[in-house]
Amino acid sequence: METIKQKSPVLFYYNQSKKWLVTISKKESLHTHIGVIPHAEAIGKEYGSRLVTNKDKYVYLLKPTTYDYIMKIQHGTQIVYPKDIGYIIARAGIQNGQKIIEIGTGSGALTSFVASIVKPRGHVYTFDVDENFMKVAEKNIKKAGMSKYVTQTKLDIKTSKKIPVSDADLALIDLGDPWTVIPQVRKLLKSSGAIFAICPTMNQLEKLTMALVENEFTDIESSEHLSRTIDAREGKTRHSFQGIGHTTYLCYARKAIFDREKPTRKKTKTKKRA
Amino acid sequence: METIKQKSPVLFYYNQSKKWLVTISKKESLHTHIGVIPHAEAIGKEYGSRLVTNKDKYVYLLKPTTYDYIMKIQHGTQIVYPKDIGYIIARAGIQNGQKIIEIGTGSGALTSFVASIVKPRGHVYTFDVDENFMKVAEKNIKKAGMSKYVTQTKLDIKTSKKIPVSDADLALIDLGDPWTVIPQVRKLLKSSGAIFAICPTMNQLEKLTMALVENEFTDIESSEHLSRTIDAREGKTRHSFQGIGHTTYLCYARKAIFDREKPTRKKTKTKKRA
Amino acid sequence: METIKQKSPVLFYYNQSKKWLVTISKKESLHTHIGVIPHAEAIGKEYGSRLVTNKDKYVYLLKPTTYDYIMKIQHGTQIVYPKDIGYIIARAGIQNGQKIIEIGTGSGALTSFVASIVKPRGHVYTFDVDENFMKVAEKNIKKAGMSKYVTQTKLDIKTSKKIPVSDADLALIDLGDPWTVIPQVRKLLKSSGAIFAICPTMNQLEKLTMALVENEFTDIESSEHLSRTIDAREGKTRHSFQGIGHTTYLCYARKAIFDREKPTRKKTKTKKRA
Amino acid sequence: METIKQKSPVLFYYNQSKKWLVTISKKESLHTHIGVIPHAEAIGKEYGSRLVTNKDKYVYLLKPTTYDYIMKIQHGTQIVYPKDIGYIIARAGIQNGQKIIEIGTGSGALTSFVASIVKPRGHVYTFDVDENFMKVAEKNIKKAGMSKYVTQTKLDIKTSKKIPVSDADLALIDLGDPWTVIPQVRKLLKSSGAIFAICPTMNQLEKLTMALVENEFTDIESSEHLSRTIDAREGKTRHSFQGIGHTTYLCYARKAIFDREKPTRKKTKTKKRA
Repeated sequence: METIKQKSPVLFYYNQSKKWLVTISKKESLHTHIGVIPHAEAIGKEYGSRLVTNKDKYVYLLKPTTYDYIMKIQHGTQIVYPKDIGYIIARAGIQNGQKIIEIGTGSGALTSFVASIVKPRGHVYTFDVDENFMKVAEKNIKKAGMSKYVTQTKLDIKTSKKIPVSDADLALIDLGDPWTVIPQVRKLLKSSGAIFAICPTMNQLEKLTMALVENEFTDIESSEHLSRTIDAREGKTRHSFQGIGHTTYLCYARKAIFDREKPTRKKTKTKKRA
Repeated sequence: METIKQKSPVLFYYNQSKKWLVTISKKESLHTHIGVIPHAEAIGKEYGSRLVTNKDKYVYLLKPTTYDYIMKIQHGTQIVYPKDIGYIIARAGIQNGQKIIEIGTGSGALTSFVASIVKPRGHVYTFDVDENFMKVAEKNIKKAGMSKYVTQTKLDIKTSKKIPVSDADLALIDLGDPWTVIPQVRKLLKSSGAIFAICPTMNQLEKLTMALVENEFTDIESSEHLSRTIDAREGKTRHSFQGIGHTTYLCYARKAIFDREKPTRKKTKTKKRA
Repeated sequence: METIKQKSPVLFYYNQSKKWLVTISKKESLHTHIGVIPHAEAIGKEYGSRLVTNKDKYVYLLKPTTYDYIMKIQHGTQIVYPKDIGYIIARAGIQNGQKIIEIGTGSGALTSFVASIVKPRGHVYTFDVDENFMKVAEKNIKKAGMSKYVTQTKLDIKTSKKIPVSDADLALIDLGDPWTVIPQVRKLLKSSGAIFAICPTMNQLEKLTMALVENEFTDIESSEHLSRTIDAREGKTRHSFQGIGHTTYLCYARKAIFDREKPTRKKTKTKKRA
Repeated sequence: METIKQKSPVLFYYNQSKKWLVTISKKESLHTHIGVIPHAEAIGKEYGSRLVTNKDKYVYLLKPTTYDYIMKIQHGTQIVYPKDIGYIIARAGIQNGQKIIEIGTGSGALTSFVASIVKPRGHVYTFDVDENFMKVAEKNIKKAGMSKYVTQTKLDIKTSKKIPVSDADLALIDLGDPWTVIPQVRKLLKSSGAIFAICPTMNQLEKLTMALVENEFTDIESSEHLSRTIDAREGKTRHSFQGIGHTTYLCYARKAIFDREKPTRKKTKTKKRA
């Protein structure tokens, strides 16, 4: 049994669209459309308990998961959705102990999620060029409790002469022009290591795929993932009227070894593949 | 640089539908429609290298990921697809160190994937009633290298008097009648812990949701996930003609604390929710 | 060349979400968020021309199509979407000259669309029990110019003793409990004639399908249809972020002849089919 | 009651994937995996009746719909699917009496379907450059009974100096490079008339949309349509495992009038739109 205390993180949950992730602070109150709840009321309660607002609505006190953190982190920014994060993890086989590179730290949400899996012996090295974004991400990664497992560096991987990390299992790429960093990213990956790029447009997929073929990647796969919620109710079960639209396309590939001795053959193969 | 040796696991990769996961054995050969490759040729090569079959086709020697293992494990059985596994991980926030329960071991694929994330300090406790399935799963979990992080028990959770595990973070349920085990599963979960059920039919979602409401779960969400691959090629990018159909619906929920002192109110709330 | 006159119908089109279907009336003006346009300015212009609002925005003067009428008609009611109407037409093979029955007139949108196809020699017979709805539908059908090809009758088909129409090619059913009218609807259809039911829930599909099997229908097919728009733009083409959620499921079937002489066989077949 | 005779068209229906569209010919038999049926047995039966094959399987004798004809016509060729045909009809508001142009006749399936709606006073003018295809299409249009309402012409619209048709309501375009014919197609359309193009790739959508903007079309909309079947069965209703993949994207637009007097403004607007 785990009891909520001062400074405990709590997800105040009313429904899917009304939920608040807070750190308990004795003197504060949560003010919402469904009423007010003084944090103090949560202290001493078990996670999973519920409170009643002054507007007579029930609110559950849930223990935040990584999902709750990353959804909160991304509030107001371009979201990497759970369905996409999930596919990245499952298709790349991200697991405990791996060394992951991230080009484009963004809000730090994907960074944090991946760190929560590879920790404590694995690590995430994340690179960005925008110091303002980096500061926001730093805070977010800290809130998610992942600072220890993440190294943030300001670096433009495209032009960098040095190789900041090597033998990585996977490189996550979230850039507008992902194809431009492929030659550099190759150097950071171990052989048979992989990349996963977040590509909002079809044109990005197209250019990236061409760059991957040219740079001797294999098992190249572009995909998109649609999630629908279902309203399951006795005698009237149906999909939700609310639809989820496009978020992003994804591109996966694994690094192969160049085979410099057989240039003619390689060319032939590339042609066939196209 | 990692070199392939006798007994190394290797994914011989030709394309998405022609790939073979093998353990290197000096005297064996891989016989396929695209030609023959003696395992011996792979020995001493770096992962990511490629070989040529006697039919002059290139085959890449990739280092298997958890994805490769679970897809292989599931060959010929009812598959839990990466898109669904991924959503389960992302939505439930499965992370390193957690204690996971699984009701219905199946092929051991989901078991292995989840173990690869929660290990080494986390653990998966998996229960089934069919000894034949359990033996197959045991082998598969071993192949994936996850035996140390998984405890398999023959147990019918529905009728079991004892509580084999307690304070679990998450219960994965893969049964034909998932609603029947909810009262028991509650006891295995920590407060605010979650369930994720694999429900191939809408009727299962409906019955399960009713059981979850009755047993005081909250944050209940039913969903389905569609994945489409995209053929990204210069000047002619489009979705693949090959479609993926229905696999399964998923149901997630988190355990709340019963609030026995306020029966009237509770009733009111439940009604509104419906 | 067709010129806009007093009383001409015009679709003032700004973009997909800002468009207004009006009948030109010399003294009126269109007041919108993007500015004001006096109808008088449209008079004498060719369809397809554009005007400028007092806020300096271009608005096109399009000639309304059946699509424009039915979208307008349905404003504020439960919409039958073009993707669903389209599938109904294509799958049932609705064509010029047919006799169509509609059980549940609704807003008259589907009625009007179907009438626009079967006219002038075909006809739509539509039945409803709610006089208020019927009046609204009557107006809408008139606006769409289809009154001549539609006969509206107040009738509860479930309990009606008489058969108001016979030898229909197709019966469209838009009721909460479509399975209850199947025995009656059989009598209105010609042999090998078809039904198409609009079923917002899975439970409706399930009950309806059972009723169809029992009442000797064949070629039974339940389906759902998802439409996504694509933002096609140079170098950044992608699906729209805005998603369309669930609208309705559809159920199609064709009437077969009962074969009373072979009861045993029939039973066997029905079992196999389930 | 309609009785099957010598030369009657009949759809022998066993299930969704086993059905045969034939013209009854006294001396012939239908040979299938589910057994043999002499055509003679169908003669004198009512449509909707069923027969038993020599392998003891029931086969229904259905009266073919336009859907059945166009699916048959397209056997073995690149299909225009009912979901796409349906959306074209619904979005463009195709109705009885219209004048339709088709650039690229293909198998004649879309041609026939559209003719079945616009007939008897409306007409379809279809153009192609490949005489072999044209002959096949001619046969198919005849089989569907639509020859009277379709005019087939060998013509390369791109380079043609003369305008073979004018004031068309709609132009259907099924070409690899649809953007090349837009300036010519403009001339065939009435003002406020529309185009619908079948575009299998995203790149086609992109180029076509640019051409449409440049040629002063409005209400431009690209879309794609996904259809899923549902297996509705008592207590185990779910989507079908069999999925339908990508077929084509669609692009719709309406012809606006060039406004030559205001070149500066037009330019500004076009920019904003992009």
